[in-house]
Amino acid sequence: MTDFAKTRALFHLPDGVVYMDGNSLGPLPIAAKERVAKMLADEWGGQLIKGWNSAGWYVQPRKIGDRVGKLIGAPQGTVVMGDTLSIKVFQALASALELNPTRKVVLSDSGNFPSDLYMAQGLIGSLGQGYVLKVVEPEDVEAAIDDSIAVLMLTEVDYRTGRLHDMKALTEKAHATGVLTIWDLAHSAGALPVDLTAAQADFAVGCTYKYLNGGPGAPAFIYVAPRHAEAVRPALSGWMGHAAPFAFDLDYAPAPGIERMRCGTPPVIALTALDAALDAWDGVSMQDVRKKSIELIDLFIAEVEARCPDLVLASPRDGAKRGSQVSFRHPQGYAIMQALIARGVIGDFRAPDAIRFGVTPLYLGREEAVRAAEILEDIMTARLWDRPEYLRKAAVT
Amino acid sequence: MTDFAKTRALFHLPDGVVYMDGNSLGPLPIAAKERVAKMLADEWGGQLIKGWNSAGWYVQPRKIGDRVGKLIGAPQGTVVMGDTLSIKVFQALASALELNPTRKVVLSDSGNFPSDLYMAQGLIGSLGQGYVLKVVEPEDVEAAIDDSIAVLMLTEVDYRTGRLHDMKALTEKAHATGVLTIWDLAHSAGALPVDLTAAQADFAVGCTYKYLNGGPGAPAFIYVAPRHAEAVRPALSGWMGHAAPFAFDLDYAPAPGIERMRCGTPPVIALTALDAALDAWDGVSMQDVRKKSIELIDLFIAEVEARCPDLVLASPRDGAKRGSQVSFRHPQGYAIMQALIARGVIGDFRAPDAIRFGVTPLYLGREEAVRAAEILEDIMTARLWDRPEYLRKAAVT
Repeated sequence: MTDFAKTRALFHLPDGVVYMDGNSLGPLPIAAKERVAKMLADEWGGQLIKGWNSAGWYVQPRKIGDRVGKLIGAPQGTVVMGDTLSIKVFQALASALELNPTRKVVLSDSGNFPSDLYMAQGLIGSLGQGYVLKVVEPEDVEAAIDDSIAVLMLTEVDYRTGRLHDMKALTEKAHATGVLTIWDLAHSAGALPVDLTAAQADFAVGCTYKYLNGGPGAPAFIYVAPRHAEAVRPALSGWMGHAAPFAFDLDYAPAPGIERMRCGTPPVIALTALDAALDAWDGVSMQDVRKKSIELIDLFIAEVEARCPDLVLASPRDGAKRGSQVSFRHPQGYAIMQALIARGVIGDFRAPDAIRFGVTPLYLGREEAVRAAEILEDIMTARLWDRPEYLRKAAVT
Repeated sequence: MTDFAKTRALFHLPDGVVYMDGNSLGPLPIAAKERVAKMLADEWGGQLIKGWNSAGWYVQPRKIGDRVGKLIGAPQGTVVMGDTLSIKVFQALASALELNPTRKVVLSDSGNFPSDLYMAQGLIGSLGQGYVLKVVEPEDVEAAIDDSIAVLMLTEVDYRTGRLHDMKALTEKAHATGVLTIWDLAHSAGALPVDLTAAQADFAVGCTYKYLNGGPGAPAFIYVAPRHAEAVRPALSGWMGHAAPFAFDLDYAPAPGIERMRCGTPPVIALTALDAALDAWDGVSMQDVRKKSIELIDLFIAEVEARCPDLVLASPRDGAKRGSQVSFRHPQGYAIMQALIARGVIGDFRAPDAIRFGVTPLYLGREEAVRAAEILEDIMTARLWDRPEYLRKAAVT
């Protein structure tokens, strides 16, 4: 059994705060603070350039990739860290399209994170030659998979509602029709059990600053299925993905396997924070996390619906069909969330009208779920959100 | 007058070390260690998701870009931080090629950093349609500029020898022939005066972990000349470069100006370290840095040549024609550098036979330059490098 009291003690959570935005930015793991301080002083400060070897900086992207891999059903040597999720989406899509050269259509849905769609638009703008991005509603994805599609590119968990795609079923249908798949696990990794191997996913990408608590702008990851790893051409062919980076050849030659998905010099400080953050998963069962996440969200939904009749559930009611977050709609959603934050309950707002709450069993329990609902009730009952200071601003939330 | 005793005190330099590898990885600025610790505890730890606004994380890439811009002759609002140098090369080249659509040739030289060439090869592999990369010797670049060339892409300072291209003259010739320019300032920014505006450069890119001391894998920068900034299409069109990232539109629309060259979520911890590192440049005149750099390298060359007749100068003897580094050739270069490092003089080795020394007036003085030459003399005279432990390994140096 996972000891959630123990995992909770690993995080710094400010007094008086109920933090329900770990699906946007996980809180500070105490170990990350300590490890980064040590890395700066002892490794960068003390070892200087030698740190690339002596402190293992050079191999971090692969070693940490293996740690992330364990959380998403990826075998050792199939995941590598670096860059941002947007860049990893580009890498995966550019490679996937070349593996399926007779087709020109990228299929995605309107529940994909917009940056994924933007990156596809950017790539297609460069490729020209008839490539198109086709975006359908989430519920229409399955029917839209046909033999015109080159690549199906989806985010497993909808960032707005938490609606969960059936990765295995959609991948199976895609493969039956000659379509390759890219799964964005931004809201999946660390949120629920993922088994890329069992699902036979072709590519997967994700970020590490949400449920993996790697810190603001933490490095992203990319997975390439072993059956493709030696075949893919990296479009972003940087020196760290070269077969012999320090031979300084003038011509690119890809490194074996997943290493070719490395690009530039790895972000060592950020990777160090992430490595420490991943310690929180030692001894944690993702099945236990999933079970507790569903319980907590079911509890939170029941409490909110009992207390706040004006809020409309925007997430699937069935726990098996949603990720580890829950959203409610209200025309004054933005102001309500501002009022909540002012009372110490931190969630976030997603346009046009959704207040969104991340549920993260590593450091969130039943007590907080109930407290958050109570405070939400206060706000709704007294219309505490109806104040000028909570009016919508062009804010980053 | 720049007070180099004062700048020196800003860095942590291990006892007994002569650090001549600041052209590969600058040393730890004491302020970076302090600032990152504070950012982790107070901003990430204390402000959580709110840090994007309250701690200014969201605007870091632009604000720090402006700080870097001051060091390279770039007006405010023309430089933005993010990603790695390899990614920024890709961005610049993809955009530049689209600005010159009737031509298909990218001209570069064999003294460009290999990753720049690799990224060009990767992009060309995606574009197809007859695009080619033409690589000539550095001394043949000028003659190779003709009206077949779309983009001239060069690193100003040769990473191997320090040989300096004439940015202004080459850009002028390029423009006269309808060619756009991309300048990689990896070994220029913080090393010598750069004036992108005066040179009329079209694009510039660079890293910040060398002379700018931002830490291992620190974020890169990109400059787009104001005359192009509203015209370029970003091929890597991520949400942070969108005109309204938090509107979550399904279609990409570029942000005004340089902001469109942002891509994914910015690496906040790394940007914080870099921001603190840049404080070292407050009150520093780049002309003073340049003057002292040339003096120190002239001194070091004289001392080495007097003491070590077997080492052959691989860098331009004329200080005006080189950057802030100097290299010597020897068939046993790798082992010599290993022996030097064992004696506390840290430079690096670049295949096939160059030992390379970065000279960084912010924290390196005459005394160290002479001491390094003395230790090098010891090693050469006693053939101290001829030991099994210094034999070449497949190491990252």
